[in-house]
Amino acid sequence: MEFKKVEERTNMGAKLYVTPQPALMIATYDADGTPDVMMAAWGGQYDNNQVCFSLSKHKTTDNLRLNKAFTLSYADARTVVESDYFGIVSGNDVKDKVAKAGFTVTKSQNVNAPIINEYPLTMECRVVEMRDDEDGGAWVVGEIVNAIADPSILTDGKIDIKKLNPVAWDGSSFNYLTLGDSVGKAWNSGMVLK
Amino acid sequence: MEFKKVEERTNMGAKLYVTPQPALMIATYDADGTPDVMMAAWGGQYDNNQVCFSLSKHKTTDNLRLNKAFTLSYADARTVVESDYFGIVSGNDVKDKVAKAGFTVTKSQNVNAPIINEYPLTMECRVVEMRDDEDGGAWVVGEIVNAIADPSILTDGKIDIKKLNPVAWDGSSFNYLTLGDSVGKAWNSGMVLK
Repeated sequence: MEFKKVEERTNMGAKLYVTPQPALMIATYDADGTPDVMMAAWGGQYDNNQVCFSLSKHKTTDNLRLNKAFTLSYADARTVVESDYFGIVSGNDVKDKVAKAGFTVTKSQNVNAPIINEYPLTMECRVVEMRDDEDGGAWVVGEIVNAIADPSILTDGKIDIKKLNPVAWDGSSFNYLTLGDSVGKAWNSGMVLK
Repeated sequence: MEFKKVEERTNMGAKLYVTPQPALMIATYDADGTPDVMMAAWGGQYDNNQVCFSLSKHKTTDNLRLNKAFTLSYADARTVVESDYFGIVSGNDVKDKVAKAGFTVTKSQNVNAPIINEYPLTMECRVVEMRDDEDGGAWVVGEIVNAIADPSILTDGKIDIKKLNPVAWDGSSFNYLTLGDSVGKAWNSGMVLK
């Protein structure tokens, strides 16, 4: 092994971020019916058909408490500028930030939340739990009710990761990274080692 | 926009998995002091200095309840065969699966958990919460106490994602994917759109 002994390695402290993280785009309606969307990277799969994510206090947390619903899409290489904008500009400061970025929405038929038309894959979710923190933020669990995909990201009816082309949030460098090639199929190597 | 209207897109149902997911390697000691490690993809950042992940019932859940500690490393392209093996073979069936895969451990100085020597970056974590489910699994929150990095993955003292080379778990195709190039720095594009 080419690595140093553990006791000779470098202590990095405790302020690290998991990598990769997904770049989840969480879309909601506010009390006026204005669509809002933000990026959440602190999240992922919680259970079968369920996702979870941690949010600081945002307009989105208010909207989630109000409507108990959201849609979830992915930032991708094509929309990285707009998606990053959605992550740093609050709907409290820019009233209609979705339109401001040139994006448009369609109301979901399944939950009370907007589908951002410019993202090709959208999960329609209902909030099943919000655990509020003391600062107004929350950890949110959502159940996937349905998903809608543009045919352009499908191959033989299944989601094609190369066509979807979501970005990964790198918790080490704070860059959006594309996904590369496969280095192995999951649940496969046991045969080699058993 | 090149996409179809939402009402003309394809319904995909509810059984979708977030992508990308991290390939977290969770290492623990059992009651006999035998090291165990498993892969958890349903997890990520929970808060500053905190990670979370969902586990079905595993030897790892027992070990976490016992020792309230674990280490967290990443599956990478170099270790993908062994890491996948750790994800599919239970420590209940193969008593010393870490050694079986040819890997070795060093006891953490900070928590009661093993550091897998063959992973170049390891976070040492204490369990701050376990929310048990009815099937013996749990959702786990861990606090990062310290991290240890092999110098070979650092550039100017910081983690270099290209050198670390962690894989992403693709929730669409169940492949391990490498991370590609940056398509943008996070928290940056607002200047373009404001």
